[in-house]
Amino acid sequence: MHAVYLKNGRLTVRTDYPPPVAQPGEALLRVRLAGICATDLELVKGYAGFTGVLGHEFVAEVVAVNGSEEEQAWWNGRSVVSSINIGCGQCAICQQDGSEHCPNRQALGIHGRDGAFADYLTVPIANLHEVPAGVADEAAVFTEPLAAALRIREQVVVGPGEKTAVIGPGRLGLLVGQVLALTGNEVIMLGRSQSSLVMPAQLGLATALADDLPDDSFGLVVEVTGNEAGFAQALRLVRPQGTIILKSTFHGLPRVDLTKLVVSEIKVVGSRCGSFAPALRLLANHAIATTPLIDATYPLTEAQAAFTHAAQPGVRKILLRPATFSSLTD
Amino acid sequence: MHAVYLKNGRLTVRTDYPPPVAQPGEALLRVRLAGICATDLELVKGYAGFTGVLGHEFVAEVVAVNGSEEEQAWWNGRSVVSSINIGCGQCAICQQDGSEHCPNRQALGIHGRDGAFADYLTVPIANLHEVPAGVADEAAVFTEPLAAALRIREQVVVGPGEKTAVIGPGRLGLLVGQVLALTGNEVIMLGRSQSSLVMPAQLGLATALADDLPDDSFGLVVEVTGNEAGFAQALRLVRPQGTIILKSTFHGLPRVDLTKLVVSEIKVVGSRCGSFAPALRLLANHAIATTPLIDATYPLTEAQAAFTHAAQPGVRKILLRPATFSSLTD
Repeated sequence: MHAVYLKNGRLTVRTDYPPPVAQPGEALLRVRLAGICATDLELVKGYAGFTGVLGHEFVAEVVAVNGSEEEQAWWNGRSVVSSINIGCGQCAICQQDGSEHCPNRQALGIHGRDGAFADYLTVPIANLHEVPAGVADEAAVFTEPLAAALRIREQVVVGPGEKTAVIGPGRLGLLVGQVLALTGNEVIMLGRSQSSLVMPAQLGLATALADDLPDDSFGLVVEVTGNEAGFAQALRLVRPQGTIILKSTFHGLPRVDLTKLVVSEIKVVGSRCGSFAPALRLLANHAIATTPLIDATYPLTEAQAAFTHAAQPGVRKILLRPATFSSLTD
Repeated sequence: MHAVYLKNGRLTVRTDYPPPVAQPGEALLRVRLAGICATDLELVKGYAGFTGVLGHEFVAEVVAVNGSEEEQAWWNGRSVVSSINIGCGQCAICQQDGSEHCPNRQALGIHGRDGAFADYLTVPIANLHEVPAGVADEAAVFTEPLAAALRIREQVVVGPGEKTAVIGPGRLGLLVGQVLALTGNEVIMLGRSQSSLVMPAQLGLATALADDLPDDSFGLVVEVTGNEAGFAQALRLVRPQGTIILKSTFHGLPRVDLTKLVVSEIKVVGSRCGSFAPALRLLANHAIATTPLIDATYPLTEAQAAFTHAAQPGVRKILLRPATFSSLTD
């Protein structure tokens, strides 16, 4: 089958990749649409040293289930998305907190397990979520990043008077901004250039140039750039006793003004994966705009060009679509 | 009067410093005992660019009150400690959150206002707290750092099963360890050498060498070293979704693995000043050992030697005592 394979920092589109086989408790999925995210771009640069098939944002169709008759009857043929973390199920963290932080976990297309930039992949049946009727593939493919955006509301409670800033109006930031605006709080999308603020404004979000705003302006600042300057901006803009959410991984070891954290009693909260169920509900309710975030869709076989496109500044979501005629033996 | 004066990084013991005069709403205090803390050592190195009389940990006696007759009758002659932040009283932060984070605040001996390493100082009457009967000066002088240790419990809720580590068994760390042990949770004091663990063990606290412990061991880690290596150790030892409290200011801009914060969803909380009332209650109840933390007491006039002593590794609290016969005109 076709698969976008990463090894030693080299990305290749394989045509001869062995199709996966569903193990007991797993489902075999045919990928219909997948999205490239910042983590994929970092993985190509060498982050986490991953070898295998990339891709963890996707929508697919169940083509086989290695499970009970009930599971087969229920899942076969359904449109699904899948959560990406697969815990060992044995450790204290799996038993207590779930698989997201299992030290032995696999993560689809990120760590220890092939992902979705392929004609087919397998996932545990337990990770599947049915896509509700009326949610197009082009929306369902945003389930994983939307869940990640919603994670913020699982982690912090924000008073109704607290102004919220989102630094970085990119592919994930625009989901974060929309999700936080649903709280009814005042939310402002911050960028470094006027051009970066066009899209958030089109989505109905308030916007500003980050440098134009005074210190200590926000009770909650969400940092989505993943760079040192973005974090410094967040630290400048958050008010004493305010909260900064880190939503993107960082390159290397940024220098951080920890003294300001102490003196102003700032709280910094790392934030990663979220729950799929609320994300799918919001997509079904058409509460989140996703279509404007799509900049291009490439055939899976043109993944190289797609990655080049996705890495350009200001580009938002780039999608990959496997050929619809692909069979397990292609 | 005598005063320990800092200007351009130079510490001098002045004998001719003009005695302060209580302005309306202020009290004039005669200092009985004062403590040198890490912040004082940092101020001498240039942190915050302070010029003036150092000292913010102290116990004193009220000798004059520029206030109402009731205030005069109540406070004159009493033993007191004083909170150190003096807000403008006008801004939104003062009105909403109190003076601790007022952007225009003064802080005794730290920012914009003379402190307590002197025969006398003035403070707002509103900042005074009476020292309860039975609390010796040698205990009362720890009120400010003990309040800072208690601040942690005002900021985070920790489940009963969460193991707690305190990195840095120094002057502040030993107060933090004792305060957190009062929660009944398992608390371990961590040091880099066996010798640093002698005192915490004498205080009845559990101890370990930080390097001996596996990753992800603690739900709560309190970082009291204020150095980059201490923070890296905290980040190594905290479990996914755990909390790191930063209790000391840092030199410069440490490099920080923000990616681990994101991936493991760690929360980092800066922590500074706390409430004096609970600190004084714990001292009155003899719930916190302070005498063993005192390494030496110097006359105020020997402040230079006291600072040199306080800056040595492993040294805990060094106290300064003004001459008891000092009068306002000395």
